[in-house]
Amino acid sequence: MKKISRTSPSKIVLLVIDGVGGLPHVTTGKTELESARKPNLNRIARDSLCGLSDPVSPGITPGSAPGHLAIFGYDPVKYNIGRGIIEALGIDVKLKPDDIAARGNFCTVDDKGIVTHRRAGRISTDKNTVLCRLLNNIAIEGAEISVLPVKEHRFVLILRGEALSPELADSDPQQLGLAPKKIEALSPQAQKTARIVNEFVSQAGSLLHGEASANMVLLRGFSRRPDIPSLSEIYKLKPAAIATYPMYLGLARLVGMQLLPGGENITEQLDSLHRYYADYDFFFVHFKPTDARGEDGDFWAKVKAIEELDNALPSLLSLDPEVLIVTGDHSTPATLAMHSWHPVPFMLKSKWCRPDNVAEFSERACLAGGMGRFPATEIMPLAMANALKLDKFGA
Amino acid sequence: MKKISRTSPSKIVLLVIDGVGGLPHVTTGKTELESARKPNLNRIARDSLCGLSDPVSPGITPGSAPGHLAIFGYDPVKYNIGRGIIEALGIDVKLKPDDIAARGNFCTVDDKGIVTHRRAGRISTDKNTVLCRLLNNIAIEGAEISVLPVKEHRFVLILRGEALSPELADSDPQQLGLAPKKIEALSPQAQKTARIVNEFVSQAGSLLHGEASANMVLLRGFSRRPDIPSLSEIYKLKPAAIATYPMYLGLARLVGMQLLPGGENITEQLDSLHRYYADYDFFFVHFKPTDARGEDGDFWAKVKAIEELDNALPSLLSLDPEVLIVTGDHSTPATLAMHSWHPVPFMLKSKWCRPDNVAEFSERACLAGGMGRFPATEIMPLAMANALKLDKFGA
Repeated sequence: MKKISRTSPSKIVLLVIDGVGGLPHVTTGKTELESARKPNLNRIARDSLCGLSDPVSPGITPGSAPGHLAIFGYDPVKYNIGRGIIEALGIDVKLKPDDIAARGNFCTVDDKGIVTHRRAGRISTDKNTVLCRLLNNIAIEGAEISVLPVKEHRFVLILRGEALSPELADSDPQQLGLAPKKIEALSPQAQKTARIVNEFVSQAGSLLHGEASANMVLLRGFSRRPDIPSLSEIYKLKPAAIATYPMYLGLARLVGMQLLPGGENITEQLDSLHRYYADYDFFFVHFKPTDARGEDGDFWAKVKAIEELDNALPSLLSLDPEVLIVTGDHSTPATLAMHSWHPVPFMLKSKWCRPDNVAEFSERACLAGGMGRFPATEIMPLAMANALKLDKFGA
Repeated sequence: MKKISRTSPSKIVLLVIDGVGGLPHVTTGKTELESARKPNLNRIARDSLCGLSDPVSPGITPGSAPGHLAIFGYDPVKYNIGRGIIEALGIDVKLKPDDIAARGNFCTVDDKGIVTHRRAGRISTDKNTVLCRLLNNIAIEGAEISVLPVKEHRFVLILRGEALSPELADSDPQQLGLAPKKIEALSPQAQKTARIVNEFVSQAGSLLHGEASANMVLLRGFSRRPDIPSLSEIYKLKPAAIATYPMYLGLARLVGMQLLPGGENITEQLDSLHRYYADYDFFFVHFKPTDARGEDGDFWAKVKAIEELDNALPSLLSLDPEVLIVTGDHSTPATLAMHSWHPVPFMLKSKWCRPDNVAEFSERACLAGGMGRFPATEIMPLAMANALKLDKFGA
């Protein structure tokens, strides 16, 4: 791909509707997409090459990182990125190659040390900032420790030092009614790091003892920054991201995207797209509410989120990018109230896309599309081809 | 495949309609195939297993070599064959394993050395032959040099000698308004070869100085004969090729096909098929005009070429081969006027093919076929199976 990609003035816009795929409602028999009024999405579908993509492979439910990495063209199994690193990149921590990052939650434990709320009642970001300042007082021989606030109950723990290792199990038990787990080394080289982190958790517990809700911490996703080639290196693109949540900004930064102001909602995101349209040739626009409502298990709220997005689309369509891709990073059926393994509706509109007979953007309709069912890692080569940014391969 | 293939009297005919896939005409919304009157192709489709194949992978535009190698069952990325070798095989040069071949063009340069015509106004093959004889006078210490005419402005340069390397960049700038590039070594071992080739180009320029149009040469695709198993080794086939252009004959020879007389057009090619039908069990018949008209950007001429082919088909159908495959090596949409990445219509007719519901040979119709969208490297195993030339795999 490095050998055959070339720069050109054409623009690629990748709109990721997070968790867009769904399952039929038990009463109506229609999925969220099939239930939504979405004239703009359907209009795009009629001019597009459609299909259903598998982010990882059939049966595998992707987290947000593999879901996005696959769309960005990376093998999500080869590049299995830790949650700590993604969270750290999302708040723009400058990481050295050997730094270790973990995602932290402030949580609530009862007087027996049992977790009663994994998110400490979603404390405010301001409160979080105060507590992180407190935890930054912790000093342990063998590692330099930083605790950085993210949003609400989320923080990032960074360890810097000699001979540290990210091969650690999580302390987060992922359910209520259990105590935070002691962090275990998954390899002999990680024993020193496990000792330091357990000492950190113990001191954090003491420092937070008086707090009403945020009286303990949970840690997960210990990881180092991976060695991953950027989109510019592979595709010679000048890419930018317009997202509203730190995690997606972290993923975008990981693959070398410039982060643009995202504002508070899709209308403001698309305003940002207009403002910076001349300056980049690849735009990743991330729409979050579909996934959030799906995870809430609120079918009709997810339908409404799709309609809200559809309403905003004329602003995007007025730019008439050479290549417009609309898809999701995974499915989040409201009936399941979680990420799922189901393949994801996909459409690509361009002058050269060879449209199929699909007239609606939905799971069942896209099944008859020109791409059929396909791995999400094929999306980037296809985008590049349709933008006429790829040379011929071979003699 | 070597372990389970077996010989049998059944015949396989592979008809490659070069560049057959297209894109919708801007006015009619129909592709070249959809616009053509093609009763015979449609009749075959009704009795066939149909699909859309990707020669390399989605988004990748194949050159003619990877397009054909994939259909012949070879991984086109693993066997990335240089243009020089293909051109040399096409004119039946006997190559030693270490010989290096390059594709040459006679071209026109102005008095500042800038290329003004990359094909020297398509000089005649006779003129080419005279000029090649002239260039064969060039002698350079370190390599034995041969210059051999192909068709019109095309020639092949062969270098034979000790410690030569094909790791050289092209001299062909691939566009007008630039001077031919000095040939660069892509590895330290290739420096000697680069020096020899640059000396050849310089002497060629002097010898051609007085010529009106063919006053310089361009070189590209430096390569050695690859180590590739033949179709006989893999499939135990006795294969033959009926093509009209040297490049396709070169590709056929590369994989061990016998070259049969091709004549001047598809009628003569099919006459040749009749004549030699008893002597082989696999026939590759190559139809060129669809690609040529597509590259010209002449939509209706490409439609006419499809109709011309369709007209000739009763002669092929009268042989009633056990397996008949009709497909292309890539798409060449007239609207793009170049090879493209779009998947290629495919059909396989045999007594055992399990026909689908496809009733027309076209891009959209084949999408609903029994093969769906699939990699072109799956075609050969499928052909072998339908010819009952494969044993069961496993216990």
